[in-house]
Amino acid sequence: MNTTPDHDPACPFCRNLSGTNPRCAFVSQSDGVSSFVNPRQYRPGATLVIPDRHVATIFDMTAEEWGAVTVHAQRIAVAACSAFGAPGVNIFQNNGSNAGQTVSHVHVHVVPRPEGDEGSAIFGEAHFGKAPVAERLAVAARIRKHLAAAP
Amino acid sequence: MNTTPDHDPACPFCRNLSGTNPRCAFVSQSDGVSSFVNPRQYRPGATLVIPDRHVATIFDMTAEEWGAVTVHAQRIAVAACSAFGAPGVNIFQNNGSNAGQTVSHVHVHVVPRPEGDEGSAIFGEAHFGKAPVAERLAVAARIRKHLAAAP
Repeated sequence: MNTTPDHDPACPFCRNLSGTNPRCAFVSQSDGVSSFVNPRQYRPGATLVIPDRHVATIFDMTAEEWGAVTVHAQRIAVAACSAFGAPGVNIFQNNGSNAGQTVSHVHVHVVPRPEGDEGSAIFGEAHFGKAPVAERLAVAARIRKHLAAAP
Repeated sequence: MNTTPDHDPACPFCRNLSGTNPRCAFVSQSDGVSSFVNPRQYRPGATLVIPDRHVATIFDMTAEEWGAVTVHAQRIAVAACSAFGAPGVNIFQNNGSNAGQTVSHVHVHVVPRPEGDEGSAIFGEAHFGKAPVAERLAVAARIRKHLAAAP
């Protein structure tokens, strides 16, 4: 297990990264950034993009680190929208518990918006339960296929 | 007036950039990215960060362009939170009308969350009216002061 100061064993996202959570459906990992299917599938293909370094908010990230995460999120957004035929996508990231952040490891939400899903706010919809692991793995595989096909 | 294909005279954000809207309270402009106070002050210091090039969604941006906008947004977030004593901040960006995008020029929302403003979703709160221009100019000046003081 990674025990550097950049890794917090109490953090659920760090546990995903250390490979000890078999329920985590990774989509991608490269250059210090990883993504995995959001257990709460607000919309089909909803994915979280995180820095591998444990850092709570953007206040503690360098411009380079934050830029790497957001550029990675753009690639995931394109692939997830392609994979699920979604014409729109929300990208959002909350800093601080009073801003609605519930896991203290920076994460960018990528939420594809399918046809017929019109404009309403979808943020903070905590009533969405967790999707079954098999479904998450299938979503991850589908997005990865479109990531690989991207120019 | 800029009449290159990268400028759309029908776009309100392009009109801000061309300097023909005296009501626009700019916060910053550098390296192809600009920011101005959101007329709808959902929260004190709410700011929009945009690419100078007219582009509708992240689907049409290069990684370099999108990275420049998000890194600029990080700087604005730090300065706006410092300026308004906000411990938290939401960063969000909507692509496509069905994702809640109302102006077809890429814009990243930076919304500081003050103490006592706890966690609820603040997105799509269209009922917020526009702040008076004098207030917007004061907000811009306040954020700029903290931008200048940043390391």
